[in-house]
Amino acid sequence: MPLDAMTVTIAELAGHRGETVTVAGWVVHHRSSGQIEFIVLRDGSGELQAVSRGETRTRLESRLAELTQETAVRVGGTVRPDPRSPGGIELEIDDVQIVGRSEGFPIGPKEHGIDFLMDHRHLWLRSRRQVALIKLRAAIIRSLRNFLDNNGFIVADPPVITPSAAEGSTTLFAIDYFDEPAYLSQSGQLYLEALAMALGRVYAFGPTFRAEKSKTRRHLTEFWMVEPEMAFCEFEENLVWQERLVEAVVQEVLRECPEELAVLERDLTRLRSVRAPFPRITYEEALALLEPRGLGVQWGEDLGAPHETALAEAFDRPVFLTHFPIELKAFYMQPDASNPRLALAADLLAPEGYGEIIGGSQRIHDLALLERRMADHGLDPERYRWYVDLRRYGSVPHSGFGVGLERLVAWIGGVEHVRETVPFPRTLTRLWP
Amino acid sequence: MPLDAMTVTIAELAGHRGETVTVAGWVVHHRSSGQIEFIVLRDGSGELQAVSRGETRTRLESRLAELTQETAVRVGGTVRPDPRSPGGIELEIDDVQIVGRSEGFPIGPKEHGIDFLMDHRHLWLRSRRQVALIKLRAAIIRSLRNFLDNNGFIVADPPVITPSAAEGSTTLFAIDYFDEPAYLSQSGQLYLEALAMALGRVYAFGPTFRAEKSKTRRHLTEFWMVEPEMAFCEFEENLVWQERLVEAVVQEVLRECPEELAVLERDLTRLRSVRAPFPRITYEEALALLEPRGLGVQWGEDLGAPHETALAEAFDRPVFLTHFPIELKAFYMQPDASNPRLALAADLLAPEGYGEIIGGSQRIHDLALLERRMADHGLDPERYRWYVDLRRYGSVPHSGFGVGLERLVAWIGGVEHVRETVPFPRTLTRLWP
Repeated sequence: MPLDAMTVTIAELAGHRGETVTVAGWVVHHRSSGQIEFIVLRDGSGELQAVSRGETRTRLESRLAELTQETAVRVGGTVRPDPRSPGGIELEIDDVQIVGRSEGFPIGPKEHGIDFLMDHRHLWLRSRRQVALIKLRAAIIRSLRNFLDNNGFIVADPPVITPSAAEGSTTLFAIDYFDEPAYLSQSGQLYLEALAMALGRVYAFGPTFRAEKSKTRRHLTEFWMVEPEMAFCEFEENLVWQERLVEAVVQEVLRECPEELAVLERDLTRLRSVRAPFPRITYEEALALLEPRGLGVQWGEDLGAPHETALAEAFDRPVFLTHFPIELKAFYMQPDASNPRLALAADLLAPEGYGEIIGGSQRIHDLALLERRMADHGLDPERYRWYVDLRRYGSVPHSGFGVGLERLVAWIGGVEHVRETVPFPRTLTRLWP
Repeated sequence: MPLDAMTVTIAELAGHRGETVTVAGWVVHHRSSGQIEFIVLRDGSGELQAVSRGETRTRLESRLAELTQETAVRVGGTVRPDPRSPGGIELEIDDVQIVGRSEGFPIGPKEHGIDFLMDHRHLWLRSRRQVALIKLRAAIIRSLRNFLDNNGFIVADPPVITPSAAEGSTTLFAIDYFDEPAYLSQSGQLYLEALAMALGRVYAFGPTFRAEKSKTRRHLTEFWMVEPEMAFCEFEENLVWQERLVEAVVQEVLRECPEELAVLERDLTRLRSVRAPFPRITYEEALALLEPRGLGVQWGEDLGAPHETALAEAFDRPVFLTHFPIELKAFYMQPDASNPRLALAADLLAPEGYGEIIGGSQRIHDLALLERRMADHGLDPERYRWYVDLRRYGSVPHSGFGVGLERLVAWIGGVEHVRETVPFPRTLTRLWP
């Protein structure tokens, strides 16, 4: 009885040529061609073509007829080489057991509108493209973590529930914490600065939240960030860590995810050129570049998505945009010693219009300067008392940055909208499923 | 000028014997003994004894006098073997640069009350024991992820902001989501079931939230969970994954964290015996074990912390407690085919009184049964429409479990209270810093 044979995943099948095995999975599609039935199966690890013909087909006829899209099955058979099949093998079916029926699966090969697909996200996730995106995201997470772990960074996750805001409070989600006001964290940075003074190099990797009323292809209300923070690290070294990290992740994904990138039809030549060092332009240089392109900006004004896209188009790899007017940036950023109107901050812009994927800066380490900047921003010193303490006891120059995971996945995967880069996206208009 | 020498971390020093290097870090303590000054430094990667004597000491005298606890310094010198020092090396100081002063650091070698330490958590994190705990936590996170990644599990994180509750709504934190009611997730499980149908084996690794008014050493309001979920996986296989995972993590930590476990004064013999398979007792057997110990429980009543501790004491490794009365468990748990009054659920109890570290179960895959159980629990079918959909389209037997990270760290580290196992704990009475 073939269904007693060892159950193997589709990814493992290539190591079982000539053997009798069982595969457990779901029907992707099913067609007859003359005397042969072709059934494509998926099990999460990959896709497989299973075939049935001759006597077996006659014996299994009634069961084969029930194999609609997304029917769950256990299929026993023999693994055979077949150069025309995906993966170079196919399964010659001996027996089929129906585990779970599927009638009228709502998502077919035809085009569906995005609202319909998002309402059926729990089922849409089974499609080839969505599976590829989740796997790509998982590979990118692994690569980010490995790079940091292998370079002496200690993962140390700051709290999500916080009593005060890292960067202004207009875009915070408020919660009731046993009758005390509290907020969902927008960034773990302030906490990471405390941790860097204890551990040297640290990072956080978790969800962050912004109640932004933006409905763009780059915005989610709940998104994941990787936030490294380093003691005894100044602006220049901070940029080097960023470009090394991004290069390592992109090159590793090219090596490890060829199938996922193929499903996503990603142009690989654009990714292969992502090698450190990355070009750097100052805010002032950016204004000079934008002016002749009809995107003139007054000194002191912020740059938007069209500006970022235009700047990124001038380069074949990510580009650092540095030395912003200090008024545009958060209170904790270190002013440039040679021109205190500028912040030692940098945004890393991805190519191809994906915009900012990293924001980082050197942090103020001088107590008096930090207190002056907090007063300029009208911040309540009592709320930041513990943060200011870090400048009282062995303060050191330190820097850090935050990588937006979904934007990184969108860029590497070549995906138009960040909503496809996370299993269950949360946006201004979507909280379900 | 020695401070121009290459800056190396303390962990790297052993590879630089005889060389002139610079170390950047903080003063742990500082004492004179006759003609020699001993300065213990930390930099997050480790601790180092630096010494100064003779002419150099005279030359540096005024600067050395300023090296109070937690002063940040750059110290240049020569790496020398010294069998009496930690790590077998010491640094013979050539020069010292003060980077950040520290006057009156609030946490000294004397005993402090827990409220004082928690109010100064941002500084307390620098102590040897807290550094060891954060590093132990990081090693456990890495080990959990590696085990899952290497066994075909795809990380796929469910949302934190959710429109409905996984297990009742009495302990949920509510948030205002653009004027819609929403909650912080207590578990990603329902979403992970959808993802398992797409990807086979998946896991989540992120923060979860419970607004429980419990003030015990085992409770945090914000805590991290690892939640694996597997399609085509029944109750028995689910237990095997759990014991393999816990064995792998404990044995890896024993190999990789000897220094941290020594700082924590952990009894290693108790950890060495953590080898799969783990013993299993049913709820019914547990009642029989508890009765003669003066902890009698009526069939159908839940077990509390004292019962868990008493049960765990009967074994030298973690023990599975299985087959609970179905009324005690969540609506989605599969009843035992041989006795439908029992749920195919298991809690894994850690030894030494640490209580439940894993909760898991086989999930209901039959549509009619799930709908009946939801009605029994008075759940609104509309809210769970997408979840029920999973039983309409290719439903398969599936199982999963959730590991409480902080409890796992507390047990492996031998720490009395979970509040020390997370950088900035959140409890009923603590939201600051």
